[in-house]
Amino acid sequence: MESAIPQNLEMKRSRHKRVPDDYQPPYPSFVARYKPTVSRVAMAYFGVQYRGTAPTVATAALAEIAGTFAKESGPSHWDRARYIDQVGHENVVSVAYWDDIARFDAWFAPAREAWTGKARDGIGTFIEVLRPSLARHETLFSSSDRPEGVAAIAGRMSGEVQEHAYWGGMRDRIPLSQTDAMAPGGNPELIRDGTRLRVEAHDNLCLIRSGQDWSDTEASERKLYLDEVEPVLREGMEFLRDHGLGIDCYGNRYMRVLAADGSVSEKSYGQSWWKSLAALERWAESHPTHVKIFGAAMKYLSTLGPSAKLRLYHEVTVAAADEQFFEYLNCHPKTGMLAAVETASA
Amino acid sequence: MESAIPQNLEMKRSRHKRVPDDYQPPYPSFVARYKPTVSRVAMAYFGVQYRGTAPTVATAALAEIAGTFAKESGPSHWDRARYIDQVGHENVVSVAYWDDIARFDAWFAPAREAWTGKARDGIGTFIEVLRPSLARHETLFSSSDRPEGVAAIAGRMSGEVQEHAYWGGMRDRIPLSQTDAMAPGGNPELIRDGTRLRVEAHDNLCLIRSGQDWSDTEASERKLYLDEVEPVLREGMEFLRDHGLGIDCYGNRYMRVLAADGSVSEKSYGQSWWKSLAALERWAESHPTHVKIFGAAMKYLSTLGPSAKLRLYHEVTVAAADEQFFEYLNCHPKTGMLAAVETASA
Repeated sequence: MESAIPQNLEMKRSRHKRVPDDYQPPYPSFVARYKPTVSRVAMAYFGVQYRGTAPTVATAALAEIAGTFAKESGPSHWDRARYIDQVGHENVVSVAYWDDIARFDAWFAPAREAWTGKARDGIGTFIEVLRPSLARHETLFSSSDRPEGVAAIAGRMSGEVQEHAYWGGMRDRIPLSQTDAMAPGGNPELIRDGTRLRVEAHDNLCLIRSGQDWSDTEASERKLYLDEVEPVLREGMEFLRDHGLGIDCYGNRYMRVLAADGSVSEKSYGQSWWKSLAALERWAESHPTHVKIFGAAMKYLSTLGPSAKLRLYHEVTVAAADEQFFEYLNCHPKTGMLAAVETASA
Repeated sequence: MESAIPQNLEMKRSRHKRVPDDYQPPYPSFVARYKPTVSRVAMAYFGVQYRGTAPTVATAALAEIAGTFAKESGPSHWDRARYIDQVGHENVVSVAYWDDIARFDAWFAPAREAWTGKARDGIGTFIEVLRPSLARHETLFSSSDRPEGVAAIAGRMSGEVQEHAYWGGMRDRIPLSQTDAMAPGGNPELIRDGTRLRVEAHDNLCLIRSGQDWSDTEASERKLYLDEVEPVLREGMEFLRDHGLGIDCYGNRYMRVLAADGSVSEKSYGQSWWKSLAALERWAESHPTHVKIFGAAMKYLSTLGPSAKLRLYHEVTVAAADEQFFEYLNCHPKTGMLAAVETASA
């Protein structure tokens, strides 16, 4: 049993963990371990938005960003997913990860200009970036043999960690929680730069990417996931999408991961922006929509036990104000962090 | 909005609350407020145990303890409840509360001798007492107009309190949590005193009495409680009774409160002994049996909203080693805290 907090990020605590030192989790979970030289990661969401079937310009944009990723100093890993949002627009988001900020910064400036610096006919584009220090970031995996998302750029997975399977584990896995409550600072503001819209959020904005992979499930397990768990998960994701602002969730996307050939895979993830880690905690722990998700997952996992082939993971970041970048071009006003600010023209 | 922690028990914190200072609970709850002169309460469980229909000696014992309660320095409030335990014995428990420890101590010594100092033919008797300082104790009520249990001896109910409706609220309401993790110290030990068996437990043993009152419910609400909630609650209570030791629950009784005339009322409570507050937290937050109870209660309350007539309350104590007393005479080895120790003769 090891701590989810890596040794080089252990600090003299002024805040306690939520569980006693002899706490034993009831089942194993794992976290991504970065090379000791890594102090910061970057995660960049590049979105394309359009209505109806993909116009040629959208297809071209997707090819273009893939090409840009392949350039010098591009990401160590990227994946792509799609979803139809609350106003019926298709969104295809390519998510890229770096473990070297100097490389990311060198790569990003021209990539940004190419992506949101010029309008594309009939489609919107957006960029959402966090570049947190590792002290502001955590991951969790139900199995250690298939990294997803940011973990794909980590060197390896941990052994079994202690800080999971209790409410508050997410916070306890974030190294900064040893000394800091991570309270939010202020409200998101809209910055107009011609037709480009930027959002400047605030200290301790929180991002979660929480994924499901049912590609290994078979027969009755697959049916159980698709019939009993997925509909409840979808309901919760739609609640956050449509009513999240009332509980300080700025936006949620329930994404279906795309395979390399563009077809849908048997993987999904919810990706949501929160005013604070505390707001995410409150929803997860007590909102009826997530209590239902948790109940369905518990029932599923207790029915299947260790034989379950469903894989679950998440990555959570609580970003400082200067670790964030949000920029939208020709996107509708409910896109991403735009939903958190008033974008109507005076 | 007020803190559940009374002002005279506020301490300079070395441990943080689980929620931010601006946390707003989603619905109202209340706590018992004692007179400022009260520093300690006593709660004493006097049990009668037998098999089958009540023998005359059991009826006589119940009348006797009621008479003893009525004596000088007797409790300010007492109530009575029954349940059939895991080996099929009937248990009738009279629970008495004091807010003045000098009065309790004066009253208790002869009452104890009378209750567990002499064998009664065909029945067992037991005494379980906690006498915690108020810093080691908390209550919670869904409505402020009907005190139950220890709250019946408090002067009044609070206004709406902040520290509830999140996991960890129970701990945050206990004043000692401001400075102390309340970790358990050691294991329960059996003390033989002739045929009387005493259990000496350990620092930070935890007791919860968690009650339900459906006497005001009508028609569809009553049906919903009895058909959808109560069976799930019962299942959880039986799990704790039969399998609690594996998760550090020493014992659980799912009691039905008796009216003054001895008939069953429409009130019940679960009463359980735990190795630590942390163990109780873990069960409540993540064990499938309590997750089901929580889910059923959430569904019930969200269906009914503020019109719900079901009343819920609990009282929780984390007792120091010298605030406890457990004594059993002619009871079977699974009775109360006896279940936590080996009682078989060598």
